Amino acid sequence: MSSTTQPADLARHPLQGLRVLDLGQIYNGPYAGFLLAMAGADVIKIEPLSGEALRARGGMTGLAFSMGILNSNKRGIAMDLKSEAGKELFIKLVQEADVLLENFAPGAMERLGLGAERLQQLNPRLIYASSTGYGLSGPDRDNLAMDLTIQAYSGIMSINGPVDGPPLKTGPAIADFLGGVHLYAGIATALYEREITGIGRSVEIAMLETTFPVLSTSLTSMYNLGGKQPPRRGNSHPASASAPYGVYTTTDGHVAIICVREVHWQRLVTVMNQPGVEDNLHFADQKTRGKYGDEVDEVVNAWSCKLNKAEVVELLRAHNVPVAPVRTIPEVVEDPHMHSRGTLHRVKHPEFGDVVLPHSPLRFEGEQRVSLQPSPRLGEHTYKVLDDWLGYDAATVDALLEQGTLAAPDPRDRRAGHEQ
Amino acid sequence: MSSTTQPADLARHPLQGLRVLDLGQIYNGPYAGFLLAMAGADVIKIEPLSGEALRARGGMTGLAFSMGILNSNKRGIAMDLKSEAGKELFIKLVQEADVLLENFAPGAMERLGLGAERLQQLNPRLIYASSTGYGLSGPDRDNLAMDLTIQAYSGIMSINGPVDGPPLKTGPAIADFLGGVHLYAGIATALYEREITGIGRSVEIAMLETTFPVLSTSLTSMYNLGGKQPPRRGNSHPASASAPYGVYTTTDGHVAIICVREVHWQRLVTVMNQPGVEDNLHFADQKTRGKYGDEVDEVVNAWSCKLNKAEVVELLRAHNVPVAPVRTIPEVVEDPHMHSRGTLHRVKHPEFGDVVLPHSPLRFEGEQRVSLQPSPRLGEHTYKVLDDWLGYDAATVDALLEQGTLAAPDPRDRRAGHEQ
Repeated sequence: MSSTTQPADLARHPLQGLRVLDLGQIYNGPYAGFLLAMAGADVIKIEPLSGEALRARGGMTGLAFSMGILNSNKRGIAMDLKSEAGKELFIKLVQEADVLLENFAPGAMERLGLGAERLQQLNPRLIYASSTGYGLSGPDRDNLAMDLTIQAYSGIMSINGPVDGPPLKTGPAIADFLGGVHLYAGIATALYEREITGIGRSVEIAMLETTFPVLSTSLTSMYNLGGKQPPRRGNSHPASASAPYGVYTTTDGHVAIICVREVHWQRLVTVMNQPGVEDNLHFADQKTRGKYGDEVDEVVNAWSCKLNKAEVVELLRAHNVPVAPVRTIPEVVEDPHMHSRGTLHRVKHPEFGDVVLPHSPLRFEGEQRVSLQPSPRLGEHTYKVLDDWLGYDAATVDALLEQGTLAAPDPRDRRAGHEQ
Repeated sequence: MSSTTQPADLARHPLQGLRVLDLGQIYNGPYAGFLLAMAGADVIKIEPLSGEALRARGGMTGLAFSMGILNSNKRGIAMDLKSEAGKELFIKLVQEADVLLENFAPGAMERLGLGAERLQQLNPRLIYASSTGYGLSGPDRDNLAMDLTIQAYSGIMSINGPVDGPPLKTGPAIADFLGGVHLYAGIATALYEREITGIGRSVEIAMLETTFPVLSTSLTSMYNLGGKQPPRRGNSHPASASAPYGVYTTTDGHVAIICVREVHWQRLVTVMNQPGVEDNLHFADQKTRGKYGDEVDEVVNAWSCKLNKAEVVELLRAHNVPVAPVRTIPEVVEDPHMHSRGTLHRVKHPEFGDVVLPHSPLRFEGEQRVSLQPSPRLGEHTYKVLDDWLGYDAATVDALLEQGTLAAPDPRDRRAGHEQ
């Protein structure tokens, strides 16, 4: 702790006191709202009366667990933005808000009469943040966009997958999440700028555009190939410029090994202690090994396949060679490291039971982080939010519920809502 | 434009006037610095005398093109942080800086005597931002980390790849870039907070932790499977909950098709006009189609394989079914949409020639964005930066060059540097 700072200043949450309306759905918008909530903002998740699209995607449970992952520490209300009374109530909330975020298709909010321009006329300090597949302008603006189609259109699929297979989507929904974290990044930037100018800025993210820099390795390969498409390379180095680089077999699974520096290879050779490796000219340096990558992989696999994952990892860590076991999702959920850092939490969730949920990957030194609150049921915080933000009494809210402007919350939540 | 705002306020760059020291290397740190530079900050890329690691990874060109992608609009100086004179100069720069970012291994800056605590004592307004593989605490802190090993350890590999294949790394280096954009997000948050508190905050990102929320679909599948590892699913829906969902064959490549809503499927059925599809009970609703996904894919492929990519895309777009061609990297680089939006630029780069480079995916409504400046040569802006930041005259810089504290810039750049 520096002598010029006060502990109290660091214990605060970076975004405390800020009010956010989160109209996000599925992954993209909700992840931005999640990062805002975990940094201390008061984030209100606004859903349509029937709940957002993700609620219904739960398979056998009826409620998708991802709802629980991405909506922690938000308070929930459900309202009909198509009705006049709903729009009126929404505008009152907007007038109290610092940030509004949404990931609807371009033009959806304008069609409701709730576009950025109108809302910022009513509240010039409002930061209006939109994330779409292709952006709010340009010839592709109105193409329907999902993570899958953006992965196709962005070029990601063309360089993901085994050498001899078809183009492959990535396992995780990376276009959605790149969109979400860039949306948060834009909002945080606009919050900073508003402190300078006093004016809220509209922020716009296109998922497609967030994927472009992520192609850096393939763009480099294309450049080196004189503008041609680089091949899919499975687990090998995208430009055949390095080996060992990839995934190797053990008796009980796989490990990733990478020798970035010459000394890593020398140490690996020592550990493997295989005849004929040290003086093989095909293994002379990084560049040559990259060229003869298949031979390198054969040697490493011949060694690793006789050991188990833990043995390979322990040996190579002890010798400072970059290595990691390929872990399953259940192993990752139990990761002692992330639990010890307070990134993963064991939570008793009212809808999902005993589960592990993440806190934010954004960490601020000295902050007493907000405690993790389970995601809201549909309309759970209706009374509390309308009281906090607008000073509405219960009778006023009751009237809005009865006329169908708000969704009736679960009886357990009526007039209470859980405290945060 | 709202009546209460001034055009001049919106034309400004959100981060103009901010000073950043970017010690980033490879992708992670440099991408955060790139986003800062494109939002208007004065970002100084500080490299060791021999240049950062990425410079040497260029294959036949000797300089990796990714250097050019991720370092636009930064000014470059090269200095020896291990020498006393280098440390002294560095600290003078730190005293003028708003942000310092780095993605060295944990403890590297402390070992140089330049850790966050000391630097923030010297400059309490400094935001010190670190991105590492595993974070600055916890049992795995000191494991060597690269994008590849984080992909293994995070669980990403376990759910990427074809059904019958081994765990597979994703084509793009997503762990590195998720780290980089979260690092930027943390910095922007701390910049906002500093306006409230007056104090700079340390920000910490662990690549491993940024990948966890991105697993949401697989975490949901695991939850639905009672805690078991979900299988790799190639291009199919991770939870078999939806079809069509995936990549389909045409006469000249592949297309991605996804029917999120029932109406998408009905429209697709109309377009395909295949006998026996409409009344097949296996295709009755989303859930049933998900269960019989292989049959659905067979029907769609039987139709798509007779058309070319453009035909499939045009037909389905006309009928509002979510679709996209699987594009190659060269196609993406020429994308008319991203060029029209000013996201991609044709640049004559002094080291790479005529190339396409990206602007930032963070877009602020009304901003006159900074014009794209090519990435710096090693030490290119030495004289200009030390004059701007510290008021050093040429003779003072000459002395530092002669004693080896700074790297001699290319003779073309001596005393000039290109203007930004």
